[in-house]
Amino acid sequence: MTAAPFSHRHLLGIEQLSADEIVQILDLADTFMEINERPIKKVPTLRGKTVINLFLEPSTRTRTSFEIAAKRLSADAVNISGSTSSTVKGETLLDTAKNLQAMAPDVIVLRHSSSGAPHYIAQHVAAAVVNAGDGTHEHPTQALLDCATIRKHKGKIAGLTVAICGDIAHSRVAGSDIRALSKLGATVRVAGPRTMLPVGIDALGAEVHPRLEPAIAGADVVIMLRIQKERLDQTSLFPNTREYSRYFGLGPHLATTLPPDCIVMHPSPINRGVELDPAVADGPRSVILDQVTYGVAVRMAVLYLLGGGSPEA
Amino acid sequence: MTAAPFSHRHLLGIEQLSADEIVQILDLADTFMEINERPIKKVPTLRGKTVINLFLEPSTRTRTSFEIAAKRLSADAVNISGSTSSTVKGETLLDTAKNLQAMAPDVIVLRHSSSGAPHYIAQHVAAAVVNAGDGTHEHPTQALLDCATIRKHKGKIAGLTVAICGDIAHSRVAGSDIRALSKLGATVRVAGPRTMLPVGIDALGAEVHPRLEPAIAGADVVIMLRIQKERLDQTSLFPNTREYSRYFGLGPHLATTLPPDCIVMHPSPINRGVELDPAVADGPRSVILDQVTYGVAVRMAVLYLLGGGSPEA
Amino acid sequence: MTAAPFSHRHLLGIEQLSADEIVQILDLADTFMEINERPIKKVPTLRGKTVINLFLEPSTRTRTSFEIAAKRLSADAVNISGSTSSTVKGETLLDTAKNLQAMAPDVIVLRHSSSGAPHYIAQHVAAAVVNAGDGTHEHPTQALLDCATIRKHKGKIAGLTVAICGDIAHSRVAGSDIRALSKLGATVRVAGPRTMLPVGIDALGAEVHPRLEPAIAGADVVIMLRIQKERLDQTSLFPNTREYSRYFGLGPHLATTLPPDCIVMHPSPINRGVELDPAVADGPRSVILDQVTYGVAVRMAVLYLLGGGSPEA
Repeated sequence: MTAAPFSHRHLLGIEQLSADEIVQILDLADTFMEINERPIKKVPTLRGKTVINLFLEPSTRTRTSFEIAAKRLSADAVNISGSTSSTVKGETLLDTAKNLQAMAPDVIVLRHSSSGAPHYIAQHVAAAVVNAGDGTHEHPTQALLDCATIRKHKGKIAGLTVAICGDIAHSRVAGSDIRALSKLGATVRVAGPRTMLPVGIDALGAEVHPRLEPAIAGADVVIMLRIQKERLDQTSLFPNTREYSRYFGLGPHLATTLPPDCIVMHPSPINRGVELDPAVADGPRSVILDQVTYGVAVRMAVLYLLGGGSPEA
Repeated sequence: MTAAPFSHRHLLGIEQLSADEIVQILDLADTFMEINERPIKKVPTLRGKTVINLFLEPSTRTRTSFEIAAKRLSADAVNISGSTSSTVKGETLLDTAKNLQAMAPDVIVLRHSSSGAPHYIAQHVAAAVVNAGDGTHEHPTQALLDCATIRKHKGKIAGLTVAICGDIAHSRVAGSDIRALSKLGATVRVAGPRTMLPVGIDALGAEVHPRLEPAIAGADVVIMLRIQKERLDQTSLFPNTREYSRYFGLGPHLATTLPPDCIVMHPSPINRGVELDPAVADGPRSVILDQVTYGVAVRMAVLYLLGGGSPEA
Repeated sequence: MTAAPFSHRHLLGIEQLSADEIVQILDLADTFMEINERPIKKVPTLRGKTVINLFLEPSTRTRTSFEIAAKRLSADAVNISGSTSSTVKGETLLDTAKNLQAMAPDVIVLRHSSSGAPHYIAQHVAAAVVNAGDGTHEHPTQALLDCATIRKHKGKIAGLTVAICGDIAHSRVAGSDIRALSKLGATVRVAGPRTMLPVGIDALGAEVHPRLEPAIAGADVVIMLRIQKERLDQTSLFPNTREYSRYFGLGPHLATTLPPDCIVMHPSPINRGVELDPAVADGPRSVILDQVTYGVAVRMAVLYLLGGGSPEA
């Protein structure tokens, strides 16, 4: 396997990528999808490379996906989580990053509750930094896996109409998805309660809808975001879970109004019965598990491009 | 190393195994015992395979045993524990399992507090599922390592008399041990306070004793179960730890009444001085540490049979 | 790579090492420093060996360093931490150690809150035991990495004057540093509040100073220890953090009084602004990140010597 040189040292966000670079990652991910279907799902590309998964916010799913991706590339994967870590107690993020850098890792995958944290440490380390979710800002590998999944099912992205529904203002998935899909030529609509629609979102090129129905009407793809129930119940963003579900959840009845070939996506984990009804989540439109499968492949592609492995390996 | 084909896709319990299949695993475990004594304790059998240890109930010992087993077979082992996991918060077990399956693991090792959990997910995933303990139901690899240990020390299992003592009703170890030993032709006696003896246990073929002494009289093997002190102190199953120890603990005096070649076993960790006196746990009859050693070998055998490795590897 | 035979089965403390043995480890660490600068930072030396990192006291940094060291030697690294472990609940350390031993590890790396814990288990296991910090006693790999760092920057250790400053009485780093530096021929001064200077410290060969300034005057190396803020605030050892910083912190003004080529060290993580001012920690005298880099190399050297790998591998 060989790949064209990649012009970035880090993957901090979709914001920094051109459409061509996104396509380069998607193409590479398709190659890794094939490898992941083989009996021996392992290539020696990153043998002798160290990938540190520094997750300072809880996440099993994304950490597991990155860990599997690293191991299938033969890298040594080292997990550090915030809760059991002296990294969070009395030490700055910069000191943590510099200390890890001193151990000569090749890639640092960072999840952090503060927007911009990966960009900050990227300025101070020699390792490649991969943003695995920073605050409410970006989650670029999620957007890449979403694009890969859409491309597989629809054959293209340019010209599609994609509706992203939920708490747009606080969702890093929405932030990255809107950027990626717009760059690839899709029309993006966002829908959510007014309190969850950020000011200035249209600057990213998205059409804004304060109601769900017009946003999904005629859409090729509907992405339902996970609602943070904690946020919903504790703030005045929306009355309660039941109300949210009624007005912004995608149930079986509403799903019948979608075009026949419209696919439904969700970044997982699903709050079943809140933003997405089980009948839709498990129904024929759902490509949610394909997203998870592409997650490993996209992360393999990203680690491959940034991890410094030799193309011949 | 080669092995006969194994007719099961999963290891859900001893219940599903024939005597021949149990013996097949035990024979294979003996092979792995030899490998574990070599300077280089590693075979390439499961290279490129992914083993996920999904432990949604705390367990260091069993998880470590499975992890070492997977790594010595050259598999990539990925640990997920419940306490730091989005898998437990707001997501169903089925969603967790399907999501993990989408990452294309070859084996999912599951420990879960609900009886039947591994059976449930096995119906929905393509990966092999290994039950690492489900509620009060089964803990098949524990029974297999117990059988392997007994066979090593006694040369056979058929015809032996094995006494299992403690909280039979709530012990998945007891459940699996009774099934395995009975299938291999041993006579099984169980002993415990009446409140800890389940109704219908004799249907599994065990002789039931409400007192310890007659159960262990003349036994070839005595298995002392770990008492859950939390359970003991908070319920009315038994007055208290001291009383339990007095009537159902195995102390040095009582041990002298055992046949000279009777061995004493325990699934660990031991509550020293409660169900087992230190003098017995560390005495010449004790084969408790052999059980731990066989634990790795048996789990290597199970992962080998279910992990899809090529026999020639 | 080949190495002279090492005459110890365990690394329990600096106390047990001769000057020659310390130098042997430092020389080997320099070799591993080169390997860690290669694109492929991995040697097959410990392939098929199992290294268990048993950390029964929280530590991300040291555990990560040992884990990376083990993996770069191709060993299988298994992490066990105390907080999620049945090893701490109701089981003795000896039972935990014996149980792990039964899984046939080659090395057990132990961090424990009790002084002497590694020495105790070393008497009962066949695996090599590496002390990764025991109570207030020793932290030998920290001292070795400190010596390696000093030797790199000063070209030698014999004849140097090294000042160690802080809570000497409760610091295992100080204990190991004093022993190692003294054995290698350095003059060691310790400084700290009287309540933090242990009785009998001079028996280890260190000059004792109740004030910082005379201890660091003319020093070639200054090692500032991390102050345990918890300890400071809750006890009567010292009035408060601010007072501590004023009298025993190394700030930019005081740093100007140091000889021009004096280097400043710290075991990390730094309490910035308490024992060490950021201007000094990040200034030209600081070799703190070199310490971290040597940490991996020294641990590779120790695992190499004790892990039973074949020199030809």
